Amino acid sequence: MRRMVQEAYAIGVDFGTASARTLLLDLRSGDELAVSEFAYPHGVIVDILPETGERLPSDWALHEPADYMVVLERGIASVLAEAPGAAPHVIGIGVDATCCTVLPVTDAGVPLCDLAQWRGRPHAWAKLWKHHAAQPVATRLNEVSVERNEPFLARYGGRISSEWYFPKLIEIWLEDRESYDASAGFIEVTDWVVWQLSGHERRSSCPAAYKALWSEAGGIPSDEFFQAAYPGFSQPGAKLGDVFFPLGTSAGPVRRELADKLGLPANVAVAVGNVDSFVSFPGVGAEGSDTYVMVIGTSICDMVVHPQEILLAGITGVAKDGILAGLYGYEAGQPAVGDMFGWFADNLAPAGGSGSSLLPGLERAAAALAPGQTGLVALDWWNGNRSVLADADLSGVLVGLTLQTTAVDIYRALLESTAFGNKAILDNFVEGGLQLREIVACGGLAEKSPLLMQLIADISGLPVKVPESSQAPARGSALFGAVAAGADFGGFATISEAARALQPSVKQVYTPDPAATATYGAVYKIWKDLHDTLGHTHPTWMHDLKRLKRLAATS
Amino acid sequence: MRRMVQEAYAIGVDFGTASARTLLLDLRSGDELAVSEFAYPHGVIVDILPETGERLPSDWALHEPADYMVVLERGIASVLAEAPGAAPHVIGIGVDATCCTVLPVTDAGVPLCDLAQWRGRPHAWAKLWKHHAAQPVATRLNEVSVERNEPFLARYGGRISSEWYFPKLIEIWLEDRESYDASAGFIEVTDWVVWQLSGHERRSSCPAAYKALWSEAGGIPSDEFFQAAYPGFSQPGAKLGDVFFPLGTSAGPVRRELADKLGLPANVAVAVGNVDSFVSFPGVGAEGSDTYVMVIGTSICDMVVHPQEILLAGITGVAKDGILAGLYGYEAGQPAVGDMFGWFADNLAPAGGSGSSLLPGLERAAAALAPGQTGLVALDWWNGNRSVLADADLSGVLVGLTLQTTAVDIYRALLESTAFGNKAILDNFVEGGLQLREIVACGGLAEKSPLLMQLIADISGLPVKVPESSQAPARGSALFGAVAAGADFGGFATISEAARALQPSVKQVYTPDPAATATYGAVYKIWKDLHDTLGHTHPTWMHDLKRLKRLAATS
Repeated sequence: MRRMVQEAYAIGVDFGTASARTLLLDLRSGDELAVSEFAYPHGVIVDILPETGERLPSDWALHEPADYMVVLERGIASVLAEAPGAAPHVIGIGVDATCCTVLPVTDAGVPLCDLAQWRGRPHAWAKLWKHHAAQPVATRLNEVSVERNEPFLARYGGRISSEWYFPKLIEIWLEDRESYDASAGFIEVTDWVVWQLSGHERRSSCPAAYKALWSEAGGIPSDEFFQAAYPGFSQPGAKLGDVFFPLGTSAGPVRRELADKLGLPANVAVAVGNVDSFVSFPGVGAEGSDTYVMVIGTSICDMVVHPQEILLAGITGVAKDGILAGLYGYEAGQPAVGDMFGWFADNLAPAGGSGSSLLPGLERAAAALAPGQTGLVALDWWNGNRSVLADADLSGVLVGLTLQTTAVDIYRALLESTAFGNKAILDNFVEGGLQLREIVACGGLAEKSPLLMQLIADISGLPVKVPESSQAPARGSALFGAVAAGADFGGFATISEAARALQPSVKQVYTPDPAATATYGAVYKIWKDLHDTLGHTHPTWMHDLKRLKRLAATS
Repeated sequence: MRRMVQEAYAIGVDFGTASARTLLLDLRSGDELAVSEFAYPHGVIVDILPETGERLPSDWALHEPADYMVVLERGIASVLAEAPGAAPHVIGIGVDATCCTVLPVTDAGVPLCDLAQWRGRPHAWAKLWKHHAAQPVATRLNEVSVERNEPFLARYGGRISSEWYFPKLIEIWLEDRESYDASAGFIEVTDWVVWQLSGHERRSSCPAAYKALWSEAGGIPSDEFFQAAYPGFSQPGAKLGDVFFPLGTSAGPVRRELADKLGLPANVAVAVGNVDSFVSFPGVGAEGSDTYVMVIGTSICDMVVHPQEILLAGITGVAKDGILAGLYGYEAGQPAVGDMFGWFADNLAPAGGSGSSLLPGLERAAAALAPGQTGLVALDWWNGNRSVLADADLSGVLVGLTLQTTAVDIYRALLESTAFGNKAILDNFVEGGLQLREIVACGGLAEKSPLLMQLIADISGLPVKVPESSQAPARGSALFGAVAAGADFGGFATISEAARALQPSVKQVYTPDPAATATYGAVYKIWKDLHDTLGHTHPTWMHDLKRLKRLAATS
């Protein structure tokens, strides 16, 4: 039973790849009173370590952790300034971040790279989800887990990703033992921000379950497993901990001095940290098991919930209570989407323009083409494949190029490849027994690319709904803040109740065009054959190309 | 025995895809006294028929035949103006052209499209070698020839190309019967120019043997064969004729009024027409069976000669006396080379530049990369595959794309793909029993792309020699002009003698780098697997993409 108070607000902060969005939500009306966005001062660090100018190897991607608190403070100050009078009635804060984005910290929670003696060590910085240099570790862990027939594999579609917790942790152990030994913990950014906000280390069960191979029933994989893969790597949970808090619980109130600094009242509840994708599920108002939610931005994360645990190949993970309490939450995804379109604009843009300013024009021109007209088919593996192949060493493919092919043809083929990849993921869920009736799409590209939305509808044959909120993750985090505050204080008892009560309206529905669906059915057959041949039967071709590239770079 | 005269010169004219080159050769010294180049006023017509503005279907490529005589007259006037005093001592003219580039003509040799009532008919114009719209006809002829086990197939590597004479002829018969019926002949451009020069229709045996399925022993394929493929298409040789003249013979002297107009003496011998690629073989001074000659420009033509007839799969053709008298001449090739690099510069050039002006910069940047460093592998099928798959409906492929891939990486991958395709062709000859010891490369890219030459050397493991002459075809045509004039008049008795006597010096030798050869050996394994999978085992994937593209364009 929710206690109706005069006014109640919650704040959600969503830490993305390049920036953080902060949202102030009115818990009576569901109105988004203010939204702000601030880019990380150091951006994404891929080429050169800021401290030393040292060149980073390929596949690296770092963050400066101090940036998180800088943009959090700016973001909260900004939304409170936009809604005068709201600050005293804020009851909760929720945060979410990209995942697995992790950093080594001292036992006081100080990032290792913020200490002068470690600042020149690349491994002391925060590693972004798309840092892929731990692929050899992931490959080794996969081999050993298959050899040992480890039971945890079934929860992760049969494969561990290089983006996850243990590959990144063991990468440090292998390559910079001193940084490894000097750190007391290795922690998700979402959990680290909650620690900074509340003063308490309260790690969330959600990233642990999806990215650190943890389950409530079985804990993390055994010491024997890790020792078999990496002799000498013992106490695998030492830097992870073994107490995890469920989503929606409170980590405690905002620290008093920080609350004062931000102009917040006392006792603002801080929700346990969440993951940017999962938090979008209630953010868009989804709560049923026939809804497939896509968060479409730099990459795509797909989510469904279901009362039963179904062990599917090719998903990223399944965890009980991982998305909504009481249900199994399933995750799948595509690792290069907006990144791939941006790559195209940056590197292969038609003469006379440059970068992302070209994207609206490319979208308009690509929308003028008919299904099948490009003569092209692409595999969207610019950043490897997450679902359903789970192989980060796969790479992108373009087939069908002729002397008549234009840049616009290729751009449309990249959009189509995203929608084909999505169909493979959907089909995998349906073959596993889920009955999906609609797609709800959120994230930057759900707003910016109507063509991509129409292609997803045409190629999947399902309607695609885009909700009114453009900030589904921050909205979802605000809802979790309201749940952490509790119904007695103007919040909610459960996240499902919050999602139902404050469901955003639908801004746009994309309905499949039957003629386009038929044509794309024929293209999809070719796509699927290429996908299976290059990704499943002969992955060594792409693996060898990457190996030769690494050799060339080091010789 | 060659009679030594005071002064003797020959002129060679080489009709390419976009322009014609004219060369004045000193037959005593071998010096190239003057070279000129003139673009066709109407260029290559691919989009719109000049007369009507009618949009041409995809895969079409036309020429305006009047352009040939315009550039011939300009070219000869230009070289004679550069070498004052030479004109009275010119003894012969040879011409060569792209092949199969063919046009319908009246019995007086007037191009059908130059008659007012046919000018609005696309099928009345000259069809360029790279006009590929007759692929369905080629496919049908291939099916029927396999069903009937036609003996001629063995001379053409087992497949008829859509670029050849009968597919193009039957295309008119099927699609514009009136134009077909109105034409008395369907003739190669090289033969048509010889007719215009000499006043005599003297068709050459060389294009007939390589492109019209003709052999001295067996003539053209039977009426029954054509009737089986296309009931009603009878008298297949009616527009081809059945008398063909060997290379090096004279079609007669230049017509008097034309000689006067050009400032040439009486009795300048006009050699029977030749093909731009084949004429380059003596043009570079080659005459032995261990030399592999590559003409590298818009496309690549590869040639070898051998005393025996070896029936190889995957070559374009073999004909006795087709290149040099007394030897079997073998042809193979790659249909998109300079065209593919130009396509890249035109369509996917980095921001801030455009078109072919970017190529030198791309070449320099690509040359700075090491073997294997791009992480990419490409199949160079932008214009289909000629050798060793002979399938015009294949299309280009890029594999290995990542978010780190640059435009320069892709450009280098395109250069490498050309060299990989060449290795497949070389290997096919070697497996057939030929012993090849060196590559002689000529054509525009042999001069303009040292990187491509080095890649061909590294990937094949053979040295690549580039001769001093940048106009091998025009030089070769001039030699045939000298042979047509005969030894008694300051020319030569045979083309082999001419090639030996006037062999150009070597400008540059590219030697394989063993480390690069080793790395590319590993990349070639991947390339070959992709080549076989996409081109041989599953060609329907690309065929279906093209079919869907055609459907989309017509709906």
